[in-house]
Amino acid sequence: MSSYDDLPFLPVTELAPLLRSRQVSPVELTHQVLERIEAVEPKVNAYITVLADEAMAQAKAAERNIAMGNYLGPFHGIPVGLKDLLMTRGVRTTAGSAVLEDFVPDEDATTVTRLRQAGAIFTGKLNLHEFAFGVTTNNWTFGPTHNPWMPGHIPGGSSGGSAAAVAAGECIAALGSDTGGSIRIPAALCGNVGLMPTYGRVSRYGALALSWSLDHVGPMTRTVTDAALMLNVIAGYDPMDTATQPVPVPDYTDGIEGGLTGLRVGVPRNYFFERIHPEVKQGVEQAIARLGELGADIVEVDLPWVEHSLLAEFAIVMAEATSYHEHLLRTRADKYAPDIRVLLEAGEAISGPMYLKAQRLRTMIKQSFRAAMEQCDVIATPTLPHPPVPIGQDTVTIDGVEETTLDCMVRYTCPVDLSGQPAIALPCAFNDQNQPVASLQLIGRPFDEATICRAARAYEATTDFATRRPPL
Amino acid sequence: MSSYDDLPFLPVTELAPLLRSRQVSPVELTHQVLERIEAVEPKVNAYITVLADEAMAQAKAAERNIAMGNYLGPFHGIPVGLKDLLMTRGVRTTAGSAVLEDFVPDEDATTVTRLRQAGAIFTGKLNLHEFAFGVTTNNWTFGPTHNPWMPGHIPGGSSGGSAAAVAAGECIAALGSDTGGSIRIPAALCGNVGLMPTYGRVSRYGALALSWSLDHVGPMTRTVTDAALMLNVIAGYDPMDTATQPVPVPDYTDGIEGGLTGLRVGVPRNYFFERIHPEVKQGVEQAIARLGELGADIVEVDLPWVEHSLLAEFAIVMAEATSYHEHLLRTRADKYAPDIRVLLEAGEAISGPMYLKAQRLRTMIKQSFRAAMEQCDVIATPTLPHPPVPIGQDTVTIDGVEETTLDCMVRYTCPVDLSGQPAIALPCAFNDQNQPVASLQLIGRPFDEATICRAARAYEATTDFATRRPPL
Repeated sequence: MSSYDDLPFLPVTELAPLLRSRQVSPVELTHQVLERIEAVEPKVNAYITVLADEAMAQAKAAERNIAMGNYLGPFHGIPVGLKDLLMTRGVRTTAGSAVLEDFVPDEDATTVTRLRQAGAIFTGKLNLHEFAFGVTTNNWTFGPTHNPWMPGHIPGGSSGGSAAAVAAGECIAALGSDTGGSIRIPAALCGNVGLMPTYGRVSRYGALALSWSLDHVGPMTRTVTDAALMLNVIAGYDPMDTATQPVPVPDYTDGIEGGLTGLRVGVPRNYFFERIHPEVKQGVEQAIARLGELGADIVEVDLPWVEHSLLAEFAIVMAEATSYHEHLLRTRADKYAPDIRVLLEAGEAISGPMYLKAQRLRTMIKQSFRAAMEQCDVIATPTLPHPPVPIGQDTVTIDGVEETTLDCMVRYTCPVDLSGQPAIALPCAFNDQNQPVASLQLIGRPFDEATICRAARAYEATTDFATRRPPL
Repeated sequence: MSSYDDLPFLPVTELAPLLRSRQVSPVELTHQVLERIEAVEPKVNAYITVLADEAMAQAKAAERNIAMGNYLGPFHGIPVGLKDLLMTRGVRTTAGSAVLEDFVPDEDATTVTRLRQAGAIFTGKLNLHEFAFGVTTNNWTFGPTHNPWMPGHIPGGSSGGSAAAVAAGECIAALGSDTGGSIRIPAALCGNVGLMPTYGRVSRYGALALSWSLDHVGPMTRTVTDAALMLNVIAGYDPMDTATQPVPVPDYTDGIEGGLTGLRVGVPRNYFFERIHPEVKQGVEQAIARLGELGADIVEVDLPWVEHSLLAEFAIVMAEATSYHEHLLRTRADKYAPDIRVLLEAGEAISGPMYLKAQRLRTMIKQSFRAAMEQCDVIATPTLPHPPVPIGQDTVTIDGVEETTLDCMVRYTCPVDLSGQPAIALPCAFNDQNQPVASLQLIGRPFDEATICRAARAYEATTDFATRRPPL
């Protein structure tokens, strides 16, 4: 049918017209993706469960349906990977933990249902830190995922399997989840795009919780427009997740090529440019300058209170995670990795008043972001202060200050989880060894994912990052 | 001007036409109320601060304005008492605590502002348990308030001063606040009406917090229609209290005389009729039967989860109160009464996960109420399981089971604080010594205060309780 031999590295925007016009069959595409998985999994370890037979069966059904004229839209026939904390009917869902090694849900997460209805093909369940708790090198019950660009280096987390799979051509797009940065951090370290939607924009029903007041489910893709297309499918009110809001869902690709003229881009000079690796700083500063060249007004904004983000983040996550795990901790304590079990037991030491203080801090941080966004339409920051580190490196030192790799990785992302606003991470610098070095984070107003997608797309169109391949 | 000599015992509905038509002057009315205060305060102790001069000045201004044709509505010229945790510009606001004995706010609580704009006259600041924490006999920094009907007995709390002042003719209406029952409990024990509005219906801005996720401010009055009139004045969205909702405010007296024909009244047979004093049970059962005779359909409903209400209530209140008091506990610990200080310090022992479990229990209780209200329009229960007890009696024994007076008093009221629905308490039995014995609690759908007022009014119209006077 086709002679395309590099399909796994094309974005949805290029594959969809080929699938729709039957120049490429979903069977061929899925076959190539499964071959890629077979070839690189020994080095990457992005999957906990590969659904080869199921994916081929779905691909054949998609081929038939498209041939019969029942084309369902841009995700019809697209191989998608799912972070393994999203429940899948009849397919084991581990949350990266031995505690759930035998857990086979009898229903799909809402986001999975929506992708299924859009015709997506599910390649399998992607690796993550145990219960999404941790973003660095430990707590991989099913072995660490490797960064496809830099073997032996971390892919970030907790959605590390999702970002690595997209980078390595092991799926075209993936779902991840973000509580303190778990979509944007691995997207940054793996050189691709991660979109954390507004809190309440995408249902978490059927996503095993880490911290329900902070959890977000969102797209991880090769390109900005792919993320917008995926958000089109998964966004919307869901009565099963009371945090979702009945806000209308636009087409997030509408106007995405509209450019930056007149857009006000706020740059917070406090906090987000402190203790940052010089190569990252350079990459992000150049990207922000590029936004200006493209027609944006660059304005400085101040974000008071964000320096308390780590404190608020950890107190909230630990208290909520411990509450969520109360029953399993009593009944299956021995199945947890020791370090995760200690964390969850330590959550009991977060007092109620301390938790409430963290939630009150969070309110201040939220108000701080809202106030800053009266002066601008988008806030631009680095996604991370540091490039990928080797697996096993537990601390990072910048400007002579040592901190845990975990703290370092979530410093710039978790303020946005706390504020509840949407943010997109996209690559903005590779080094001369073709390794991702820096990522730009664009933060929008609540429910205004469209504007950050438009700004990100304008920048992306000036780069070649989305067409690069890792050396695998 | 008038020959009315019993004005302090008339409801707003009777006083307002007299004031408007200038048959009675606000000066005469206020004078009579202040005389009442002077006469009975030695026995009742309902006030922490009496604003005699200020009230007379307000009364004169009201008299002038009404004479000039600037009649502001039913509260114009009405003497109103304020629970002393509501901030009053230039007037000491103690929250019943030595911690704030010198605190003079520079602005009014939103509810105070609204009453002021409606022409109300403020007689003073009413007694309460220290920081509204506690509903029984201890924690009265400014001495216990006495039940006007039964000297030596508790008036209930924490808005005990408010209910006692209304009962004793020391004001025409009062504002109270309710976190676990603090409006409805004293209304029940003092034989008058207390209305806890829907959570988010009335602003708490300027009301010192006990537990911000549970606090409600609301009317305490002689009659049901007076409560509806007061709600008309104080209800509505307030940007200064982010919990308030932009839900339109109807006239709560519209249709209040509409009767009960066709109204479905749900009676939960679990929990609310367990461990109840026989005289209270008899009074409430007779009142519910009366609702049926008046045309209501009495249906049985089930309310699962409410048996966990006390647990959820105390965990939430203790954690939030301790968080709220963090700073004062560090700086003015010696000013707290020892038992309150111990409670607030003990709040640190409520772990974050325990607090969250309480909030999750609360969600179950809320859903339980919502489900029950698919079968009915109003839920009827007793307000309290027991009649007033003597001051100093720390435990109550019913059916051979001993419990603290505090637990006993909040058992039937706190489930409604947790559910966030509106509830009104009104007297339904006096004994042959002219003492209040039982109170009926009517619970409505969120933001449907109108229906519980209508039902309460239909019942009230068949009784003479609102015209009774205590022996003072």
